[in-house]
Amino acid sequence: MKLDQDYMRMALELAASALGKTNPNPVVGAVIVKDGVIVGTGLHRKAGEPHAEVHAFRMAGDHAKDATLYVTLEPCSHYGKTPPCALLVKESGVKRVVVATEDPNPQVAGRGINILREAGIEVEVGILQKEAQQLNERFIHNMIHGTPFVISKVAMTLDGKIATHTGHSQWITGEAARKEVHLLRNEVDGILVGIGTVLADNPRLTTRLEGPSKNPIRIILDANLRTPLEAHITDCKEAKTIIVTSAIAHSSKAIALEEKGVDLLTVPSINGQLDLKIALKELYKRGITDILLEGGSEVNASFMRQGLINKYLVYIAPKIVGGTNSYTPFRGEDIDKVEEAVPLRFEKTEWVGADIKITAYPVSNK
Amino acid sequence: MKLDQDYMRMALELAASALGKTNPNPVVGAVIVKDGVIVGTGLHRKAGEPHAEVHAFRMAGDHAKDATLYVTLEPCSHYGKTPPCALLVKESGVKRVVVATEDPNPQVAGRGINILREAGIEVEVGILQKEAQQLNERFIHNMIHGTPFVISKVAMTLDGKIATHTGHSQWITGEAARKEVHLLRNEVDGILVGIGTVLADNPRLTTRLEGPSKNPIRIILDANLRTPLEAHITDCKEAKTIIVTSAIAHSSKAIALEEKGVDLLTVPSINGQLDLKIALKELYKRGITDILLEGGSEVNASFMRQGLINKYLVYIAPKIVGGTNSYTPFRGEDIDKVEEAVPLRFEKTEWVGADIKITAYPVSNK
Repeated sequence: MKLDQDYMRMALELAASALGKTNPNPVVGAVIVKDGVIVGTGLHRKAGEPHAEVHAFRMAGDHAKDATLYVTLEPCSHYGKTPPCALLVKESGVKRVVVATEDPNPQVAGRGINILREAGIEVEVGILQKEAQQLNERFIHNMIHGTPFVISKVAMTLDGKIATHTGHSQWITGEAARKEVHLLRNEVDGILVGIGTVLADNPRLTTRLEGPSKNPIRIILDANLRTPLEAHITDCKEAKTIIVTSAIAHSSKAIALEEKGVDLLTVPSINGQLDLKIALKELYKRGITDILLEGGSEVNASFMRQGLINKYLVYIAPKIVGGTNSYTPFRGEDIDKVEEAVPLRFEKTEWVGADIKITAYPVSNK
Repeated sequence: MKLDQDYMRMALELAASALGKTNPNPVVGAVIVKDGVIVGTGLHRKAGEPHAEVHAFRMAGDHAKDATLYVTLEPCSHYGKTPPCALLVKESGVKRVVVATEDPNPQVAGRGINILREAGIEVEVGILQKEAQQLNERFIHNMIHGTPFVISKVAMTLDGKIATHTGHSQWITGEAARKEVHLLRNEVDGILVGIGTVLADNPRLTTRLEGPSKNPIRIILDANLRTPLEAHITDCKEAKTIIVTSAIAHSSKAIALEEKGVDLLTVPSINGQLDLKIALKELYKRGITDILLEGGSEVNASFMRQGLINKYLVYIAPKIVGGTNSYTPFRGEDIDKVEEAVPLRFEKTEWVGADIKITAYPVSNK
């Protein structure tokens, strides 16, 4: 006999299959069970398309009566692109609803559950809650903070080097890890690097995968508009580019970049450094819900020290570079004592080919 | 019904329980099985004490007749502190012997197996061979190279820092990882650091564990005899100390150190650097079969670049230090290209408290 958590796990798997495809919406999965038979399944595939519950109830039809609905996120209670799912659930005739976690969206935040309970439906909240929250970590962060979820990606050797003293870094990690990074790029809205990386490597920052893929918006931190007009990232046919700058607008460089299709985002600077918090708020207003931070090490350190990294993905390659002037993943200001280090929590380790990937979160990720 | 590998696994577990206690001998476990019943078990507990087979046959008595002996290492064929085990096995009446791996000791190297086969005993070699070789990696290295097995231990942050720019490093890793290092010290014959570490940290390099423990011999690389007479490591009451130097003997400093009980080992220097290969050969002659290399980063790099590290244990703590002048685990000469990095093979990852431990081997560990 299957338990609530078995069906919820199936709903989570359905939801997870659309990760990176539903932005700015959360991923959601739904399973309807009657007398031990799965009579309806659904997931939210893409913003603008039906919610998970809609698909599941369409499939269930009359079988929804007296059934149990498992849904990974509280049914919505507000009129958006679609009518509120809570009303649909209420009218479906289900007698019990199991919810993994509440919707942090301030427009919902418990109202969906209240609608159901007031209609006399038995509602249980919290089955596989941790898993459901992790699955929608990006969305939950967006709702609470109104800023993009920032993922720091690092590819380093076992001794913590990302490049030799010459800046040579092709390749630290193996093919499998590099492919995974392209899969990540395919899932996020934005990819961010500093001007140093543009000047040193002239990267394209596009997604290179077999089969259809999406290019994230390229975001360059470039306080003084040093981006060369011939840099690959100014070619906006493949992918959009936003340069975050504090340079005076209407300069000839600014105009030339804009003529090439580059968007400029002007933010204040603090002691010569771009105000990253304002930059993130503005990027979120432009529809960017998550950002893959790909360096360099000064940019990484600025985000890290200001508490703006929400997740760390560190690929470690089985080799040692050593050296006195090699590059390390996080530079920035020196601290005197180990206690001043930024504390993290390791979530897991995974093999990626011959490399190891460590997933970590900041300890107080408010 | 149990298979050969089940009994061999038990023999390996018996052997493993004595790891670090049998130096310079290998660890060996033996299990004797007759008609599905384990009639004898044994392991080699300590150099000078009986071999694993002796214990097992003592227990088995007459039951050894027509039984099967599982032994993790080829029975010895030479007269050492004890008579050859191959003769004991031959006379025991067993009809079948299963051996995990051959003894690399040039005094044995197949001779033990030959004695058994010539006596008409069925011998099978290679069951759980990889596990058996890994268990005795230290001994196998000793036999083939005539040098100590060198284990590099590193404790670093997720961004590859072992100390802040001030040299502060207490503590990078958590309590569990630090305890594990003391357990490691308890198992090895020697612990090696450079003079830089002595001058910077004035460490004791002793084993601090609850209950009985063993202090490894402290080995200091100190080309110019800069070790202060008041350094903790010159106090030889707790543990022995060997200073490896290329300084001219009979200097007043040398005499003063020797009067405190410190052993001096003089080796040639190459371009001002101690000849590490000669140092290792000399240390092996003094009975040191394995060494825990605990830094600093210049010493680590010298051993690494010369291919003298046989195993890497890297403890990674969930924190980021960043900074421009922080210390990293391997320094030394810069390389230009990533291809010049020293290639490793990751063996496994383990949780140690909140830290992660990566075990790695050099790719061509001859």
